[in-house]
Amino acid sequence: MSRRWAIRLIWSVESSMATPRSLGVLLFPEFELLDVFGPLEVFGNARMRAHFDVLTVAEAAGPVASGQVVRAVADHALDGCPRLDLLLVPGGFGTRREVENGRLLDWIAQRAAAAEIAMSVCTGAALLARAGVLDGRRATTNKWAFQWVVSQGPRVEWVPVARWVDDGNVVTSSGVSAGIDMALHVVGRLTDAATADQLGTFLEYDRHRDAGWDPFAKVHGLV
Amino acid sequence: MSRRWAIRLIWSVESSMATPRSLGVLLFPEFELLDVFGPLEVFGNARMRAHFDVLTVAEAAGPVASGQVVRAVADHALDGCPRLDLLLVPGGFGTRREVENGRLLDWIAQRAAAAEIAMSVCTGAALLARAGVLDGRRATTNKWAFQWVVSQGPRVEWVPVARWVDDGNVVTSSGVSAGIDMALHVVGRLTDAATADQLGTFLEYDRHRDAGWDPFAKVHGLV
Repeated sequence: MSRRWAIRLIWSVESSMATPRSLGVLLFPEFELLDVFGPLEVFGNARMRAHFDVLTVAEAAGPVASGQVVRAVADHALDGCPRLDLLLVPGGFGTRREVENGRLLDWIAQRAAAAEIAMSVCTGAALLARAGVLDGRRATTNKWAFQWVVSQGPRVEWVPVARWVDDGNVVTSSGVSAGIDMALHVVGRLTDAATADQLGTFLEYDRHRDAGWDPFAKVHGLV
Repeated sequence: MSRRWAIRLIWSVESSMATPRSLGVLLFPEFELLDVFGPLEVFGNARMRAHFDVLTVAEAAGPVASGQVVRAVADHALDGCPRLDLLLVPGGFGTRREVENGRLLDWIAQRAAAAEIAMSVCTGAALLARAGVLDGRRATTNKWAFQWVVSQGPRVEWVPVARWVDDGNVVTSSGVSAGIDMALHVVGRLTDAATADQLGTFLEYDRHRDAGWDPFAKVHGLV
């Protein structure tokens, strides 16, 4: 190996180790708890500290009430939110109101465009769709609320049978707990398969590795 | 049916419908996110509103930082916490410090004694054990940290292979995501099996119904 290549290799390894990706998770009133905290358990885990820095963001910094009443704290307001490498938009009953929130949709569109990957869990896909992020893209969402989400994105190629859909810089998951499988998939993609497997075991999580696994599509009459 | 029995039946149905059980979830610095928000997604779900009222409690009311950095809000301080029918103690690295927190352990002992069911997820069992709640009882905990938790409860009958252990008014679960299965089990016990099944489906959760399912015990050399 030439000296120049050796220096390039060292620089590449060091820079990949030295710079965790920033993940911003959007909160809004009546967000779904597990949509947010399943993926945050994964990306925010102490074992992932070298890879990811996590934060929460909402229209105003401070407490935000979930659809399960309990409150989480938004670290940043939309305007003050640092640059995000990864964006995650959860679902929940609050999405019914937020699909009409132009300021929030503009923020999502801008941050998703600048991000390496924009993700959604559950009905969060409706917000990505209304922000235009999913136009011409393959995506999935909650199976119980599938028709409503589809109605929010007429130019989206909706996939009715999927635990999650990885369409490159857009990754969307099915309902609620599917966000955990999607998060472990993304960790595997951005680090390596062994890291994701070890994390899943640490969480004692019975992981679905098959993006096509989806018995809930049938339960809700989508196949 | 006699008139007296008809009145008793109506009273019984009405009182069971009119009084949701209160569930208090304990927070402390470096609690594990999914230990708290997996069960809260279950008990706090809008579909469970007739059955459960959920709240969070910590040494001081206000924001509490999780082991995954992100903060949740404690609704009540220990002293101001209303009566609890159900208590849930999560795990996380913060348990290493809290097992020496006499004031917190006293509170746990008092509230567990007064509760219909005291639950723990993951290393939360170490706090129940140090509070004396598990003495002479069957219990389980996280499998990665099993030996440490066992060392906190020498008079506990620890079960190394279990997704959760239901010992009547004490129900303990294995690590992190096992809390979701335990919560659905407790919902089934306190309402009915169909209600728990429908909730699991709504959450698109691939539920483990067998309390003895535990591949992680083997991974960590406990069998």
